[in-house]
Amino acid sequence: MIKIGLLGLGTVGLGVCEILLEKKSIIEEQTKKTIEISKILVRDLEKDRDSTVDSKILTDNPSDILDDPGIDIVVELIGGIEPAHTYITRALENGKHVVTANKAVLSHDLLGLTNLAKKNNRGILFEASVAGGIPIIKPLKELIKINKIKEIKGILNGTTNFILSKMIEEGIDFKEALTLAQDVGFAEADPTDDIEGYDAARKISILSSIAFGYNVAFEDVDCRGITSISALDIDFFKKLGLTVKLIGSAYSNDLDFDASVEPVLLNTNSTMANVNDAFNIVSIEGDIVGNLQFYGQGAGKNPTGNAVVSDIIDIINGELSHIDIEKKEKPANTPKILSNYYLRISLKSQKEPDFILKSIDRYELKYKFIREEGNLILILQNIGRQEVKDVIEDLEIENRSCYAKIDSKSYYFIQELNLESFNELVV
Amino acid sequence: MIKIGLLGLGTVGLGVCEILLEKKSIIEEQTKKTIEISKILVRDLEKDRDSTVDSKILTDNPSDILDDPGIDIVVELIGGIEPAHTYITRALENGKHVVTANKAVLSHDLLGLTNLAKKNNRGILFEASVAGGIPIIKPLKELIKINKIKEIKGILNGTTNFILSKMIEEGIDFKEALTLAQDVGFAEADPTDDIEGYDAARKISILSSIAFGYNVAFEDVDCRGITSISALDIDFFKKLGLTVKLIGSAYSNDLDFDASVEPVLLNTNSTMANVNDAFNIVSIEGDIVGNLQFYGQGAGKNPTGNAVVSDIIDIINGELSHIDIEKKEKPANTPKILSNYYLRISLKSQKEPDFILKSIDRYELKYKFIREEGNLILILQNIGRQEVKDVIEDLEIENRSCYAKIDSKSYYFIQELNLESFNELVV
Repeated sequence: MIKIGLLGLGTVGLGVCEILLEKKSIIEEQTKKTIEISKILVRDLEKDRDSTVDSKILTDNPSDILDDPGIDIVVELIGGIEPAHTYITRALENGKHVVTANKAVLSHDLLGLTNLAKKNNRGILFEASVAGGIPIIKPLKELIKINKIKEIKGILNGTTNFILSKMIEEGIDFKEALTLAQDVGFAEADPTDDIEGYDAARKISILSSIAFGYNVAFEDVDCRGITSISALDIDFFKKLGLTVKLIGSAYSNDLDFDASVEPVLLNTNSTMANVNDAFNIVSIEGDIVGNLQFYGQGAGKNPTGNAVVSDIIDIINGELSHIDIEKKEKPANTPKILSNYYLRISLKSQKEPDFILKSIDRYELKYKFIREEGNLILILQNIGRQEVKDVIEDLEIENRSCYAKIDSKSYYFIQELNLESFNELVV
Repeated sequence: MIKIGLLGLGTVGLGVCEILLEKKSIIEEQTKKTIEISKILVRDLEKDRDSTVDSKILTDNPSDILDDPGIDIVVELIGGIEPAHTYITRALENGKHVVTANKAVLSHDLLGLTNLAKKNNRGILFEASVAGGIPIIKPLKELIKINKIKEIKGILNGTTNFILSKMIEEGIDFKEALTLAQDVGFAEADPTDDIEGYDAARKISILSSIAFGYNVAFEDVDCRGITSISALDIDFFKKLGLTVKLIGSAYSNDLDFDASVEPVLLNTNSTMANVNDAFNIVSIEGDIVGNLQFYGQGAGKNPTGNAVVSDIIDIINGELSHIDIEKKEKPANTPKILSNYYLRISLKSQKEPDFILKSIDRYELKYKFIREEGNLILILQNIGRQEVKDVIEDLEIENRSCYAKIDSKSYYFIQELNLESFNELVV
């Protein structure tokens, strides 16, 4: 008999209860154990709840779970850094295994929590913390047994992907698409974490820590969201044969490390450009296996519940698969990765383009440009992420511009086909 | 110390040797064992070989490996049903674990070989047998611990995907693309297994056996290849906004089972339509996790070698993960799945269309049609796979026609946009 204590009974918690109930027989056949959810921590004992859960096992005292010697596995689904960090720590110290879906607490202290688990000879598994139902943490742990991972990237936030998909499909502006996402429950009342890219940054910090074998903190990820993208930009991306996605990505070799979240323009005919709505995709580049991509639902009761239950089964089967993120030193060097960037500036006057182009000339950049409906659109060539930021700061156009990296393979594609109407300036 | 005997030293065999050599330290760190390839079975001892392999460990006598009590794991990479089946059987009976990349022998006797492994308390792992470097067998075994799989499908053959990609990109005909594939080493001198869909059928038989929990034999897969697709068809697919792919697919519920390999037309803007060249993709539909897709290189020395070495590590770590394909009875019923089909008929005379349309009317089908450069192109609606075959046999047009299923989601898409030039016949 395996006893589980659940911390939190939101959407995913309910999903876990339902899956363990509905799939009881096949799970018990796999594990040769009886599994019981014996206690669930909730905030409000009086709240009306689904009948799936017996109200007698609810408690509002965390100690009933964390300090109960009968409980084998603690499933943490409350989210956020505190009190989750305290609860996970106490559970591990009390000899319990932990399963968590909490990317905030993991990107905050992956090293501390995984070391504590190892010290106590217990498992901490977190398949559900990144990309919902997609099995990615476990396959990644397998891959690094053979491969050196050069790059890991993907569409890691369903909310922003839903918003961008709606903007593309329906030609609506960012705010309208955000409201739509809130109406259908894909975005929270306070959407900051999603639309500013913080959620994706947490996930890329977790993925890259495992992939590279050193600790990548949330703060190591250079993060930018999608709030400046307008319907006009979307329209222009279409004309260029490109699709915009919020991409979290991390790159490493022996000398360099770089991690970012930013809007990226992809060839409309590519796998990643066609990942729509709340779906996620993760792409991994290994030195032996080459490019792998994993696609699926990035959130939701059942997909995320599936990942949690999968971890529970692994723990019961003794597959604790500890990670080692102190294996290597994090490279000190941030490489200057040169890309091509789309930059749109909403013009204040007819004469402004001359001023802008002159200012940009000081950077000795190669670029193409076009004027379109009160906007100047530039394709800046071979420029680094920081340099684009500098240009924008210099021009004081932060509040009336939008910029996005053009994926290198896709740039090759649009270069041939869709830039003939642009004026070319060669320094 | 773990001793490995390799049967076969072709491309993948050499890849395995190289990976075990190059990644020696990290693999031994993972497994806490020293790994040694102690013998390799080859056909011709005199052949000039790469210097990676010490010629002293080569043998042309299978007994040197199969009957050597010092060998722990036999890696079978010779392919084909015999003598591979005999060798694997003898290895398992002699208490050795087996890793194989051989889809032919597995689709021939998955039940017998997996049962023999269980009986001898040994593992038989075969990640490399389906979709090369993509981790698919292991994630699938994980998924079925929780999910009932409704459908599994994908692009499982890199050769035909390369041929179709080249036909689409370069507007060349099937034969020319096949020659190109042979020139670059993606197709064999005798390409039958690939272009007739047999290779994909073997892979879908292996995947669906694991997914559904009952034995799906190669013969259970209704299989058709890509040889009838012409440059003219490719051109027409483009006009319709569709991309053709050779899709292996299997569907099951409690009452029904169906498995097929056939050309399928997909919306050009879909993930699967954008899997190009020798890449593979596998899509799984689980009742809890929803849709998952796994993408990567379907063949090649390193990706396939990665899968083999991954299995070796699992065996050393004691993860034998036996499958149970006698868990359920195979449903007796083959469901009549109604789809929409593209059918092009090369016309023999000006008057033939009248005759054809009249003959088809006997089937009481709803369809749309158009004449184009000496061809009659029909979109047959709500028709089963067998019924299309009957129509073609009836009309005696086997040698001058091409037909392909239109993916249901994609049909909805082209219906709206691209069929307005078609004549409509409603029965």
